Amino acid sequence: MYRSHTCGELRIADENKEVTLAGWVQKSRDKGFMIWVDLRDRYGITQLIFDEERTDASIMEQAKTLGREFVIQVTGTVIERASKNPNMPTGDVEILVSKLEILNDAKLPPFTIEDETDGGEELRMQYRYLDIRRNPVKDSLIFRHKVTQEVRNYLSNQEFIEVETPYLIKSTPEGARDFLVPSRMNEGQFYALPQSPQTFKQLLMVGGMDKYFQIVKCFRDEDLRADRQPEFTQIDCEMAFVEQEDILNIFEGLTRHLLKEIHGVEIEKFPRMLFDDAMRLYGNDKPDIRFGMEFGELNQVAQHKDFKVFNSAELVVGIAVPGGASYTRKEIDKLIDWVKRPQIGALGMVYVKCNEDGSFKSSVDKFYDQEDLAKWAETTGAKAGDLICVLSGDTNKVRAQLSALRMEMAERLGLRKSNEFAPLWVIDFPLLELDEETGHYHAMHHPFTSPKPGQLELLDTDPGAVKANAYDLVLNGNEIGGGSIRIHDKETQAIMFKHLGFTEEEAKKQFGFLMDAFEYGAPPHGGLAFGLDRLVAILGGQETIRDFIAFPKNNSGRDVMIDAPATIDNDQLKELHIQLDL
Amino acid sequence: MYRSHTCGELRIADENKEVTLAGWVQKSRDKGFMIWVDLRDRYGITQLIFDEERTDASIMEQAKTLGREFVIQVTGTVIERASKNPNMPTGDVEILVSKLEILNDAKLPPFTIEDETDGGEELRMQYRYLDIRRNPVKDSLIFRHKVTQEVRNYLSNQEFIEVETPYLIKSTPEGARDFLVPSRMNEGQFYALPQSPQTFKQLLMVGGMDKYFQIVKCFRDEDLRADRQPEFTQIDCEMAFVEQEDILNIFEGLTRHLLKEIHGVEIEKFPRMLFDDAMRLYGNDKPDIRFGMEFGELNQVAQHKDFKVFNSAELVVGIAVPGGASYTRKEIDKLIDWVKRPQIGALGMVYVKCNEDGSFKSSVDKFYDQEDLAKWAETTGAKAGDLICVLSGDTNKVRAQLSALRMEMAERLGLRKSNEFAPLWVIDFPLLELDEETGHYHAMHHPFTSPKPGQLELLDTDPGAVKANAYDLVLNGNEIGGGSIRIHDKETQAIMFKHLGFTEEEAKKQFGFLMDAFEYGAPPHGGLAFGLDRLVAILGGQETIRDFIAFPKNNSGRDVMIDAPATIDNDQLKELHIQLDL
Repeated sequence: MYRSHTCGELRIADENKEVTLAGWVQKSRDKGFMIWVDLRDRYGITQLIFDEERTDASIMEQAKTLGREFVIQVTGTVIERASKNPNMPTGDVEILVSKLEILNDAKLPPFTIEDETDGGEELRMQYRYLDIRRNPVKDSLIFRHKVTQEVRNYLSNQEFIEVETPYLIKSTPEGARDFLVPSRMNEGQFYALPQSPQTFKQLLMVGGMDKYFQIVKCFRDEDLRADRQPEFTQIDCEMAFVEQEDILNIFEGLTRHLLKEIHGVEIEKFPRMLFDDAMRLYGNDKPDIRFGMEFGELNQVAQHKDFKVFNSAELVVGIAVPGGASYTRKEIDKLIDWVKRPQIGALGMVYVKCNEDGSFKSSVDKFYDQEDLAKWAETTGAKAGDLICVLSGDTNKVRAQLSALRMEMAERLGLRKSNEFAPLWVIDFPLLELDEETGHYHAMHHPFTSPKPGQLELLDTDPGAVKANAYDLVLNGNEIGGGSIRIHDKETQAIMFKHLGFTEEEAKKQFGFLMDAFEYGAPPHGGLAFGLDRLVAILGGQETIRDFIAFPKNNSGRDVMIDAPATIDNDQLKELHIQLDL
Repeated sequence: MYRSHTCGELRIADENKEVTLAGWVQKSRDKGFMIWVDLRDRYGITQLIFDEERTDASIMEQAKTLGREFVIQVTGTVIERASKNPNMPTGDVEILVSKLEILNDAKLPPFTIEDETDGGEELRMQYRYLDIRRNPVKDSLIFRHKVTQEVRNYLSNQEFIEVETPYLIKSTPEGARDFLVPSRMNEGQFYALPQSPQTFKQLLMVGGMDKYFQIVKCFRDEDLRADRQPEFTQIDCEMAFVEQEDILNIFEGLTRHLLKEIHGVEIEKFPRMLFDDAMRLYGNDKPDIRFGMEFGELNQVAQHKDFKVFNSAELVVGIAVPGGASYTRKEIDKLIDWVKRPQIGALGMVYVKCNEDGSFKSSVDKFYDQEDLAKWAETTGAKAGDLICVLSGDTNKVRAQLSALRMEMAERLGLRKSNEFAPLWVIDFPLLELDEETGHYHAMHHPFTSPKPGQLELLDTDPGAVKANAYDLVLNGNEIGGGSIRIHDKETQAIMFKHLGFTEEEAKKQFGFLMDAFEYGAPPHGGLAFGLDRLVAILGGQETIRDFIAFPKNNSGRDVMIDAPATIDNDQLKELHIQLDL
């Protein structure tokens, strides 16, 4: 072992001990007759001192050559510091060095290895191994480990068995795109990397495994939006002989456990909200309920006057922004510009200032009198001093727009506090979702989700109205998990496939093994999967996931550090029975 | 919840309780007026009773329809059994059923769901979800989970951090073949699936992570031998600021912990053996030391007579088979046939019977007298009653042949006891291995393994003699783990690449990121990886790994259950910028 102690370990109680430390030179200060070096490892920083009067001249010389990020090993005596640093756990002591070995030198890093670095995103990704030395990244990775350990221990104690499912599986082209793997041994055939272990976990239920979980990598070949990764990690779970209520309880328990262990936050019972209510009240199936600003639907109170924009709209809906009545005209104009940006897409915004004196001042005073506006205030819950922001248009679009505005305003007002945690179950999701481009319905969750009892018949008459035994767990406005009770009989599964536009042959080719399995005694079952990357980020009080992934890819799916993907040899192509088609 | 208790839970103390169980019909016995059903779930079997006198006629009728593997839910009263079954934990009770619901019916399974099944390997793989219902498979998967939990907890307690490394990486064509993944977003480029996270874990050490582990899938596109899988699981570990001794101690601790927790076996200190000694004494770098039969090299005592076969051999070497003197001529002939099989490849075998009266009878009495043979007996450690088996030829070949014979004889003699555990460190592996076909040396472990201090110079003069800081952990004749101290400076790494036949450009293209990393302050580091599939199998007292893998592939790399790999759509090919080349 190159050390007797780590750099985070020594205290005043260790005074006079001879110790050996190893680590990286964080920085050094050379006063000529005295040199101080901050030595860093994963566990902390310890100050070294080299002193002309007490240190060998040869070692003094060597110490002067130390650059940032040099890897060194030192032996010396723990002494009390002249000027203590109360901000460091080791701040009472320093090591008077008697022996110094340079284990490896280092070029000057391309960015500073400090909590606040001068390195841009791309540079930090290229030198990720240096970025990982920085506390924010290092601590995030350690935090991730602690969370996964907690998850594993909790679920194991509940008799869940972690089972590894295969990575080389079969492509199922509907849904997101698969990553494919050509098979050398089976000419012209391909494996696919799993988008999730969905069918395998269901087969484990058919196999009697009863309670399954797995922390597992999943793969989706999608055009990457910010903060999406082509490979991501799921906490994947499934249980047999359960109903929705059982699953909500188990995983509420897990999440409660994590919040308690990690943040000391105790939440008695997670609220539940119907999908339809979430859409109506927040315009969003993953509402952030840490703050109010619930939607007020204004059709009733705004569609009786000559304002054509509202009269022709499917939905008129507003929110009350706390304290917004004091915004200047210019500020409000900026807000209107914000909602008109293409990313949001509103055509305009109507506003009402709720003055402190109880009067209202709106951008549509031509059409609405004080009494009208008072009703708007009542419906949106606006109080004196608030600003009511109203959007109108097609229901789905306008909800999405107002939801974006609501989140933006909450962000600006500091209402999205990272140390406050508001979990929420959103339940009774629709079974199907209309693809507006094709006019076809597809599965909102996945094709194995069971409809609510008695709603199967609705599939023929009003498919969009069928509700599923499907649920999402939302934390602070982010979906951190989702799942459903599955179909467990072949007939229902066949009906579902038919409604999703599969021919019988297609269904058999892609999912025949699952439908076969349902013939040999499949138990009722259901489950849930958490997105680990996001869960960890949110528990860590952040919303971007990259610092919680050791080696993330960029938005083109590239690992810029190792420079992958890359071209390959022709021999390799030939062996795989493929050629390029550029 | 579909049940109040599991099928493994009820005891006589629960008498008279009303309970609800759910599970599979293991079997039923219909006596007309009484029907017994064994109800099974993951946790056990509970007997149900339906009795004409005490059960509703309609339920009796329904019970008569129950077939094997039907999924049912029953409610009833726990009663004491008339004839108890002491072999079952629930054997004192049965459930007098008052309510029966058939949750799912089942076709007759293609093989019996019993500990001893009538299903062949291929059939069981095709219906793996049924095979998993059988105790031997189910228990193996649960056992695997327990082992991995122990590993994770042990390493976490030792401050190791589990870090997920990427699955979509870059191809490094030397060594085994990579599985490749065409990139849609980066035309003409490919990711590779990792053969191991080797370079990433080294980068984590450069990144200051200090102690890393990961239980991780790895991929090798090799022609599959029996018991090899294209995807397999490693316990992958790496530590910074360590020497070989530290790594051996840590992972000896882990293995000791597992043996103790799982089998109650306490092993104070694992023996260590030099690679050269292992080859000399056992002809093998992973000797099973649960039994003796060490090799005796006989050149000195057998090459002085007129027996040309021996005189021309590089090595003459024998083992003493306990009790083998009593073998008949026919038995010995069979043994000679066995070593001459092409899989073993010996040209013949010389034997010496060590008679109980102290005399010897050999197949080469023409050339050797009793005094000669006594020396053979002394060298091989043969005692009266033993049979000395002697092979000769090229050292490497003859060692492999005699090693195979040694293992075979131990197997036949019942010396390889599955409940006995003999771990062993084999250390000081050669750095390089001669490829006899090409005449080139390649890395025995991998190109990142460091040579023993001071041996770098030997690379130019006698590359085969250079020893590495490399070690394997052997358990009962199986390599369960292996690792090395790595190179951590760019110059040494460059020398290694040169000796392995990489041009500078090739080295830079494939491993440039690692060599770059070594310029920014790489600490001394080393590690080890366990093969989890094998480790679990051996700890479970078995040598085949398939039952410890939930969904294994067959020897053609196929998953016969889901029928993967499979052909894909032309659209998918086109999107990936590839076409088939059959």
